[in-house]
Amino acid sequence: MAKRIIVDAFGGDHAPDEILKGCRMAADELGVQIVLSGREEKIKEAASRVGVDIQGFEILDCPDVITMEDEPTDIMRAKKNSSMAVGLRALAEGKGDAFASAGNSGALVVGSTLIVKRIKGIKRVAFAPLMPKSEGFFMLADGGANNECRPEMLEQFGLMGSVYMQKVMGLQNPRVGLANVGTEEHKGGELQHEAYKLLSARRDLHFIGNIEARDVPYDAADVVVCDGFTGNIMLKMYEGVAMALMDKFKAVFKKNLKNKLAAAVVLNDMKALKKQLDYNEYGGAPILGCAKPVFKVHGSAKANTLKNAIALTVKYAESNIIDEIRAAAEHKEDE
Amino acid sequence: MAKRIIVDAFGGDHAPDEILKGCRMAADELGVQIVLSGREEKIKEAASRVGVDIQGFEILDCPDVITMEDEPTDIMRAKKNSSMAVGLRALAEGKGDAFASAGNSGALVVGSTLIVKRIKGIKRVAFAPLMPKSEGFFMLADGGANNECRPEMLEQFGLMGSVYMQKVMGLQNPRVGLANVGTEEHKGGELQHEAYKLLSARRDLHFIGNIEARDVPYDAADVVVCDGFTGNIMLKMYEGVAMALMDKFKAVFKKNLKNKLAAAVVLNDMKALKKQLDYNEYGGAPILGCAKPVFKVHGSAKANTLKNAIALTVKYAESNIIDEIRAAAEHKEDE
Repeated sequence: MAKRIIVDAFGGDHAPDEILKGCRMAADELGVQIVLSGREEKIKEAASRVGVDIQGFEILDCPDVITMEDEPTDIMRAKKNSSMAVGLRALAEGKGDAFASAGNSGALVVGSTLIVKRIKGIKRVAFAPLMPKSEGFFMLADGGANNECRPEMLEQFGLMGSVYMQKVMGLQNPRVGLANVGTEEHKGGELQHEAYKLLSARRDLHFIGNIEARDVPYDAADVVVCDGFTGNIMLKMYEGVAMALMDKFKAVFKKNLKNKLAAAVVLNDMKALKKQLDYNEYGGAPILGCAKPVFKVHGSAKANTLKNAIALTVKYAESNIIDEIRAAAEHKEDE
Repeated sequence: MAKRIIVDAFGGDHAPDEILKGCRMAADELGVQIVLSGREEKIKEAASRVGVDIQGFEILDCPDVITMEDEPTDIMRAKKNSSMAVGLRALAEGKGDAFASAGNSGALVVGSTLIVKRIKGIKRVAFAPLMPKSEGFFMLADGGANNECRPEMLEQFGLMGSVYMQKVMGLQNPRVGLANVGTEEHKGGELQHEAYKLLSARRDLHFIGNIEARDVPYDAADVVVCDGFTGNIMLKMYEGVAMALMDKFKAVFKKNLKNKLAAAVVLNDMKALKKQLDYNEYGGAPILGCAKPVFKVHGSAKANTLKNAIALTVKYAESNIIDEIRAAAEHKEDE
């Protein structure tokens, strides 16, 4: 049966226009049923303006929108009638198989935890983006949901990331590494020491030990485990350095006529490289540990990125990841 | 009077050959007096082999070398007669004005703290490298000396970095930013919250609040304050992403004949860019908070980088940074 994907019509920089276009593409190409959350009147107005046929889309009418300026916790009170909160409640109540939003990440983490709830036995959800490495992608868990973590949380991030990379991304035996300041076992602080022990002891994942940040953009691991503070720093440092360097290259290519001519020669190869480095290709980040599939779509997502994200969300919903995580967490608790 | 700079003859990837060459350059160009620590016989042998005149260099003969594989604490016991330990002891005993080593950073931090000691009132030394940003450089403090920090340590890192950037790098009113997961005051964990308050309260530094890792490679701040775990992750993520991206660009330029021809056109500009991004230009990192000037030279330093590092070490020794840090730390303690 076609999966019902609830989509936040008002999340992200290009909502609702690009969201509607992306949903149309997803319905047509992936055969999913789309449930939109957001103000019905505005959705219809936008659909007619941009010429998107929303026939067959269900709409959960609601008055509010969570903005990037809102506090994450506003989703529970001031913005409990926002498109994000209403979408999450619909997911919790079984009105859809998964929820995708390009809105405020912090609010989505809070809403996932408090409205949809965590998988039994899971201590914290992780915001787990996919990022480019020398070949393919790695998952960062946690990329920013939890500033302060205990070792057991890092253990669970490793477990959840490993299951996701297998079941959704199709990787066999994903390598799980612990982000640290050196590769030796004794490196880092107490959090890393204890997490190292816990991760090493798990038979159900392929823990490869500590990895250094320097090796992450190469092929250090398929799942990079860390607390959310460190993960957020890594994620943003990655983006910042890549953008700054690209800017420098652009400046060289625009410097004078001969450089511009040279740039024209390599243009297509540079575009291919940019695409390879563009993590929009993978649409976003699952909120791992949530009891139902919630997917954070990039804030800058346009129609095609949203469609890619919905495709992953469908895979997430079709897989038995959540059951598997629950079983692994329970098994551990029974020990 | 000419400054006496003690140099670890056996630290770094290119020791002792490039170290000796760099010391010769420093003696000739900067007029410093060089004191070498290391096995005399080997120093003389290398000098004669590579044709470096070491006339006028003083040698502190000692049998051992700290390797990159040694534990940092080995400097106090197993390797207490290493070139690094002997150099640090000579500095502590007043046999020179500063010490520079391209050897094991961890050992240098431990040795600085235990042999040379900290400035009175300073809780921890910081490893404080200079790194490129869109224009010029910023200082990262702490870049990896302390995995776990208290808020007062971060406050002192900000203070010490600010004084160094003024007195050695010649920046007026350097902007001090706290590395965090968002710019708002309430972002981050307890460490960041408390450090934010302490840094805000200081009248003697220009604290600009929280900065995001994404903005660091642009021009977010002149001094980036963080715990050493976060700093080490930032430093290595910076290196890793920059290297990985450079590799990708190189591959594009070598892909086929037309790309090779295009590469030839922009070659000089690319070289200039690489030089601009090359943090070897600034030679390394001071160990801030040490009671006498200790400077970590890049492990990969060749003669010219070492000379640059020695030039900074001289400036460090000539400035009254250490007195100023002591006064600021004491003033705070008196409050």
